Amino acid sequence: MRLRNKPWAKPLIEENPDFVVTEPTKLKGKWHTRFQNNNPIFVEIGMGKGRFIVEMAKKNPEKNYIGLELQTVAVGIALKKQLEEKLPNLQLICANGSGLGEYFEKGEIAGIYLNFSDPWPKKRQTKRRLTYKTFLEQYKEVLDSNGHIEFKTDNQGLFEYSLVSMNNFGMKFDGVWLDLHSSPEAEDNVMTEYEEKFSKKGQPIFKLEAHF
Amino acid sequence: MRLRNKPWAKPLIEENPDFVVTEPTKLKGKWHTRFQNNNPIFVEIGMGKGRFIVEMAKKNPEKNYIGLELQTVAVGIALKKQLEEKLPNLQLICANGSGLGEYFEKGEIAGIYLNFSDPWPKKRQTKRRLTYKTFLEQYKEVLDSNGHIEFKTDNQGLFEYSLVSMNNFGMKFDGVWLDLHSSPEAEDNVMTEYEEKFSKKGQPIFKLEAHF
Repeated sequence: MRLRNKPWAKPLIEENPDFVVTEPTKLKGKWHTRFQNNNPIFVEIGMGKGRFIVEMAKKNPEKNYIGLELQTVAVGIALKKQLEEKLPNLQLICANGSGLGEYFEKGEIAGIYLNFSDPWPKKRQTKRRLTYKTFLEQYKEVLDSNGHIEFKTDNQGLFEYSLVSMNNFGMKFDGVWLDLHSSPEAEDNVMTEYEEKFSKKGQPIFKLEAHF
Repeated sequence: MRLRNKPWAKPLIEENPDFVVTEPTKLKGKWHTRFQNNNPIFVEIGMGKGRFIVEMAKKNPEKNYIGLELQTVAVGIALKKQLEEKLPNLQLICANGSGLGEYFEKGEIAGIYLNFSDPWPKKRQTKRRLTYKTFLEQYKEVLDSNGHIEFKTDNQGLFEYSLVSMNNFGMKFDGVWLDLHSSPEAEDNVMTEYEEKFSKKGQPIFKLEAHF
């Protein structure tokens, strides 16, 4: 997802250091202090415009959520949503690091969400897919021993690839849905902006839940 | 698949002991002698009317094939196809045993095909699904160390279940296809009777290749 530049995004982020972290390396191992509680922390990698993570935080006040996003404009849009809600259990990260291990201590995270990430369909782009083994290694590192990954996509090729990649890495599957919105689990499903748009066109949404 | 009774089926089977084995326990550990070569042996569990296994045997004369089926009528129909071809690398088994281990020695089999097996959709029927762990244990026992399973279905629920079951059993996935007939692999795909009928209606065919 590429967004058109919004000149207000960067200043808005700078004005709200309580909601947006721009130097997450400084909080490594200290996120519970930031949230001022010991509730479990869930991270969405690539939150986009933030609808999913804001909804999750609103729905589950007894859990902490972090939305991670590289694009300043997207973080700005997500921040606007958070400024309406002022959820104490939600932090946004606007940063472009080389790995999750820079931001989080081993076992600091209780769960990871990967929602509609870039499919990188070409063979030579395999290593960029967020379910490629080098990324899985990072997730394993920061997740606690019960930590789970929830992965959703509408991209068939990415889903096929991810089933094989996560299996080959040794992950255990908890559940697979090949048409999430037609399943009983649809009721509890929190949708992303993208998910709502594409599922309305009748495209099935794929989901995989797995742990290390 | 339930077939109407055909009175000719049983006599036809009895007339053709060279092509149909009705006491497979006697051949346990001796299948290579039966084929009179040491080529690898591939087994289809529930061959139905036999189109798939006959086509495979015709296409790959350097491999041996066994079609296993409980229903006498289905074996009779498959046998008619074999009587037209008289393929030396194809044997049919008409028997209703309690386990593959009765028919095959450890490591005697190079590959197993599960095509469009009964989905047994109800929760209480889980143990009857051919990808339930007790069946996977049997496949593991008779497959050689490089042995693979190829599993095809058009049933979404059975496929979702099987991905989780085979993963949780510790199997490694070699490939997943969520719409086999639209993939490049479609070209080499040998279809069953059922597969042709249902894919013509536009239903996607799911496939999983995995090994222990």
